[in-house]
Amino acid sequence: MKIEKRIEALGLTLPSPEKPGALYVPVKQSGNLLFLSGQVPMRAGKPVYTGKIGLERSVEYGKSAAEMCVMNMLAALKHHLGDLDKIKEIVKLQIFVSSETGFDQQHIVGNAASAILIDIFGESGKHARTAIGTNQLPMDFSVEIEGIIEIGDDY
Amino acid sequence: MKIEKRIEALGLTLPSPEKPGALYVPVKQSGNLLFLSGQVPMRAGKPVYTGKIGLERSVEYGKSAAEMCVMNMLAALKHHLGDLDKIKEIVKLQIFVSSETGFDQQHIVGNAASAILIDIFGESGKHARTAIGTNQLPMDFSVEIEGIIEIGDDY
Amino acid sequence: MKIEKRIEALGLTLPSPEKPGALYVPVKQSGNLLFLSGQVPMRAGKPVYTGKIGLERSVEYGKSAAEMCVMNMLAALKHHLGDLDKIKEIVKLQIFVSSETGFDQQHIVGNAASAILIDIFGESGKHARTAIGTNQLPMDFSVEIEGIIEIGDDY
Repeated sequence: MKIEKRIEALGLTLPSPEKPGALYVPVKQSGNLLFLSGQVPMRAGKPVYTGKIGLERSVEYGKSAAEMCVMNMLAALKHHLGDLDKIKEIVKLQIFVSSETGFDQQHIVGNAASAILIDIFGESGKHARTAIGTNQLPMDFSVEIEGIIEIGDDY
Repeated sequence: MKIEKRIEALGLTLPSPEKPGALYVPVKQSGNLLFLSGQVPMRAGKPVYTGKIGLERSVEYGKSAAEMCVMNMLAALKHHLGDLDKIKEIVKLQIFVSSETGFDQQHIVGNAASAILIDIFGESGKHARTAIGTNQLPMDFSVEIEGIIEIGDDY
Repeated sequence: MKIEKRIEALGLTLPSPEKPGALYVPVKQSGNLLFLSGQVPMRAGKPVYTGKIGLERSVEYGKSAAEMCVMNMLAALKHHLGDLDKIKEIVKLQIFVSSETGFDQQHIVGNAASAILIDIFGESGKHARTAIGTNQLPMDFSVEIEGIIEIGDDY
């Protein structure tokens, strides 16, 4: 439980896993890759961060949304794996930011998600990443993040 | 041909594979993963479902478009594999819904695609998934769906 | 250095690799797959192609942007691999085109990227692909392209 201790030491709290809101599974494994469904900023089934970033919603609001997405990703991984220490590498994130036209700081919003993973996993937490804007996300969420994770061959 | 019999039993029809409309191949294999190009709702080279979902185009219209995308995906897989029984797991879908700003039910549109795969493949058909909105898709298609599929090691 | 000679013979120039503009690594390897971060049309840290395609920006402008993205992708791969001959297959591209609403030729913009890879790598350069529009990309870039590449087992 080294990773969970690290999460705690960073002052972060692993939330309970969210139930899928549609016909998908949160994590699907293929070989030693885990493909994660788009994570959204909700808690206990209720949307927390909604609306487009750029006018009424600030970059800081977007960063908080991104942080919640990535903590929900870790919760889904914990539920799937039992122990987050099984994670070997954070391979890839795709970050979708609901954006007012003209807002072009999607990479700064995304940094909030990436920073948490690097803080927790160190060198293994460094990942490839794409951040883009979108005119609309499901349930008007502000951010949605999907990921690809590698687990060790011994699992 | 168990999967094709299952498709027939569900009252569905596997279409002829569409020819790529640009410089890509419909399916690219790497190891035992098949990466599928973005599937669009066309038949015999002609667009069928176009326009943005949310105002003139209903959620039901979007679901029909999503269903056509996923049937075209199966046609592309049949063309590539010869036999759909070679499919081991539906790993991941990414669903792009051309959306009027303010329309936030992309996950409901996406469910129509996911439901078909789960009906056909059962437990193996359950997949990770991301659904997002976009302001514009190629040729004004209403929905575009890409996928990652796992085939058995014995193929 | 066969691939670099081929790039030169085509009249193309491999640029210097761009430094990541946010908290990500340009390339992350998992098994024999390389996951590339979203490549943008910049040179020496400066944006080159910005703005939405469709009104003030033409399809040709978008194609030039896509070409720069893919050359930057090759530069990132050269930096990661040392020798581009280690590339076995171009597996997948995802092409995001910053689009005016109503512009629906994202696949034509994307062709410019795909054509270069097919010119350079031949049959191995043929790839699965998804091209979509977006209302806004980071730093107002006109195009962003991410990719999945397969390298040989002997590397």
